[in-house]
Amino acid sequence: MTIFDEELMKLKEKVLKMGALVETATKDAVASLVGRSSELARKVIGNDHKVNALDVEIDEECIRLLAIRQPRAGDLRFITTAMKITTDLERMGDLAEDIAERAVELNEEPILKPYIDIPRMAEIAQGMLKDALDAFVRKDKKLAMDVIMRDDEVDLLNVQVFNELLFFMIQDPHTVSRATRITYVSKYIERIADHATNIAEMVIYLVEGKIIRHMAPPSESKPRTS
Amino acid sequence: MTIFDEELMKLKEKVLKMGALVETATKDAVASLVGRSSELARKVIGNDHKVNALDVEIDEECIRLLAIRQPRAGDLRFITTAMKITTDLERMGDLAEDIAERAVELNEEPILKPYIDIPRMAEIAQGMLKDALDAFVRKDKKLAMDVIMRDDEVDLLNVQVFNELLFFMIQDPHTVSRATRITYVSKYIERIADHATNIAEMVIYLVEGKIIRHMAPPSESKPRTS
Repeated sequence: MTIFDEELMKLKEKVLKMGALVETATKDAVASLVGRSSELARKVIGNDHKVNALDVEIDEECIRLLAIRQPRAGDLRFITTAMKITTDLERMGDLAEDIAERAVELNEEPILKPYIDIPRMAEIAQGMLKDALDAFVRKDKKLAMDVIMRDDEVDLLNVQVFNELLFFMIQDPHTVSRATRITYVSKYIERIADHATNIAEMVIYLVEGKIIRHMAPPSESKPRTS
Repeated sequence: MTIFDEELMKLKEKVLKMGALVETATKDAVASLVGRSSELARKVIGNDHKVNALDVEIDEECIRLLAIRQPRAGDLRFITTAMKITTDLERMGDLAEDIAERAVELNEEPILKPYIDIPRMAEIAQGMLKDALDAFVRKDKKLAMDVIMRDDEVDLLNVQVFNELLFFMIQDPHTVSRATRITYVSKYIERIADHATNIAEMVIYLVEGKIIRHMAPPSESKPRTS
């Protein structure tokens, strides 16, 4: 194993570590909402700097490898993909923080309704993130494709949550403030899933050398929130 | 001027061209809402593929330059920054398309209220995008800083729009569906401004070689929608 191979392996490990932090942040943020624990929410908010620090660290390492190793072909694409992936991961971390912020606000008011679809959405989104990163480090195109397929499920749940909350708002205007915040949470999770989809698309590009993003048929019938 | 210098110049031009397309898309999308022209909105939706095509083209060109020119230091950072910037531009294009989609829907219903803050927000966001890209090609740190400062104004307008529409919804539940769509538009514009801010932060990084993103003080008091 050359030094460069080792460096690439360490780079992979760092990306996975960043992904694991984001996964935990998402899980904890949703748990802080469902379990009404503002303490847990504040922990999520307080931990975001760790994700940010890794973003900077990975970016610098990629630049260093590009400069001193002058990689070609597959390794070159792997490193530029890593740089793009961390940008997505960093924003996913911000979205988890956003969920936690809405949780703190919602926990201060009476519960509107039990959360059912939100935790389901979050579970799918977390699975998508985990698999997208596994697909990245293993260069597994099939798994990446599978991640992309699951995004529709999250989009559908988001529309479902929105419609249900709209019904609440129309029935009783006093619920508007809370219901709106919950629709925000739903949208944040949907965007986390979108970022996982972006990562999966980049992985396919990495494996195939072809850009598949922008090739999906346009779906104008539903609001996109990516 | 070497061949590589020329290639870098062409790369800059392509990034600016992509930026100009996104700027026009944003402007037209908001105009289609304010002027209630679904025809214009459909034009925006139909044009998004041009932005996507440039995204792929620029990405491929950057990979090619990294591989065959093996750039170092400033040029290396310039190219990796271009790759990241186009990702933001591509997503801004998607957001402009989202605005146009909501415009088509809103244009089918009676107008809720004249749009005042939305065009103002859009104008600021467009200016931010234009200046962020100018800062990129001219490596102008001061201009990039200025872009970042303007983001607060957009955030504030977004909160203002949201509060105003919330008042509408509470007063008359029949407005909920329309008002919600307008809050979406407001959030899309805010996210366009966030992407411009991301680009400006990358420009400062490019110029200074230091990563300033994540250094802003956390603002937990207001919902972030980036």
